[in-house]
Amino acid sequence: MRNIKAVIEYDGTNYKGFQIQPNVCTIQMVLEKALERLTKERIKIIAAGRTDTGVHALGQVINFYTASTIPVERFSQAINSCLPGDIRVLTAELAAENFHARYSAEWKIYRYRIRLGTRGGVFWRNYALTISDDLDLEAMREAAHHLVGTHDFQSFCASGCEVQSKVRSIKICDLRQIKSGIELEIKADGFLYHMVRNIVGTLLQVGRGQRLPNDMPRILASSDRNQAGPTAPPQGLYLSEVGYPN
Amino acid sequence: MRNIKAVIEYDGTNYKGFQIQPNVCTIQMVLEKALERLTKERIKIIAAGRTDTGVHALGQVINFYTASTIPVERFSQAINSCLPGDIRVLTAELAAENFHARYSAEWKIYRYRIRLGTRGGVFWRNYALTISDDLDLEAMREAAHHLVGTHDFQSFCASGCEVQSKVRSIKICDLRQIKSGIELEIKADGFLYHMVRNIVGTLLQVGRGQRLPNDMPRILASSDRNQAGPTAPPQGLYLSEVGYPN
Repeated sequence: MRNIKAVIEYDGTNYKGFQIQPNVCTIQMVLEKALERLTKERIKIIAAGRTDTGVHALGQVINFYTASTIPVERFSQAINSCLPGDIRVLTAELAAENFHARYSAEWKIYRYRIRLGTRGGVFWRNYALTISDDLDLEAMREAAHHLVGTHDFQSFCASGCEVQSKVRSIKICDLRQIKSGIELEIKADGFLYHMVRNIVGTLLQVGRGQRLPNDMPRILASSDRNQAGPTAPPQGLYLSEVGYPN
Repeated sequence: MRNIKAVIEYDGTNYKGFQIQPNVCTIQMVLEKALERLTKERIKIIAAGRTDTGVHALGQVINFYTASTIPVERFSQAINSCLPGDIRVLTAELAAENFHARYSAEWKIYRYRIRLGTRGGVFWRNYALTISDDLDLEAMREAAHHLVGTHDFQSFCASGCEVQSKVRSIKICDLRQIKSGIELEIKADGFLYHMVRNIVGTLLQVGRGQRLPNDMPRILASSDRNQAGPTAPPQGLYLSEVGYPN
């Protein structure tokens, strides 16, 4: 059996998230069906990040084992011919036998897009959060920087999230202006459930002057989800990149 | 009766074009239904440009007559509350009694987006034409400039187009680089059926070296549709702006 690693992108608008679930259409289901059509095998896919309903991917990483003899350099084109236009395999390569898209990952980058202004909204409705308030970007940037480092992120984790340790290391947490608005980039060694969206919801409160940037250390220290802001909606969120040891 | 002029934007992906037709969903049908819900009148909308299936609008202009007493400054918000997320009224204002969105127009600007490269395709599949060849942009730009001025555009008009005169004046025909690729901007006093898409199809042949830029005057002079290139697909096309006399 070969272990294939693939980088994929998808528009999450029409899917109930990545992970397979009964009676709904998910990215994993569509990918596994395409692989079954291609290889005649029942293949289980492992993904680096199990994105939610409406969340997109620019560089999700998956792996799967197959007995298929399709040359690996032809794999992406072959799978793409069995996939709908909103899911695309960008690259496929042979991985080490023990490579695991989730457990082997060293870091991930998520991006969250916030569109400012009123024109062009019909084109962004599924691809960004639209904000018509004036936002204090400097205050948001300052608040974001308080999150960099190793912290217990329980305050930013959806209740019911049952991982043992909620300590994660954020390496980058930066807001930058893009043509249509702003984009938050967060790079960390791991993310808790809804962590990015809860951070965005809190940063938006800072941007609107409802909180001060230096409220962030207190929120982190409280380990209390109720101290942080609301969960930002899914359509602004993109799984951008996943890094592995060389 | 008041004559209301409105500027609208729409994502044309899920519509069979602007104009009302039996048994299919069109922008005009959805707008007229929204107006009927709002005003309890049967209202007929006139549009500056009757865009095709899959074509988008950033600044389409419409007008319609209504006996409704809704203050004009509240009209756009009121209609938007009856519209799906892919059609939005940007502004609404009271127009002169004889204002006609199509016949009063002095000029229109269309844009055509061509995406270059391989990443991000899932997000552009309905919003640009994707080209993976290398294109000679300078040659395309030179070819485009040959079209500026007053010409008979029969060679770029879909067969079966039954307007009396095919003479139009192109004021701007420019290619510019945008983040994801290139965009053609065409400003003219009027456009024939499929004219922009046929121009784009011809410019792409120039970009691939299948034609020379100075082939354009000959194509224009031939008044023969077969001399021009193929019709580019609809999803890259945007009706951008419509101008009226002050």
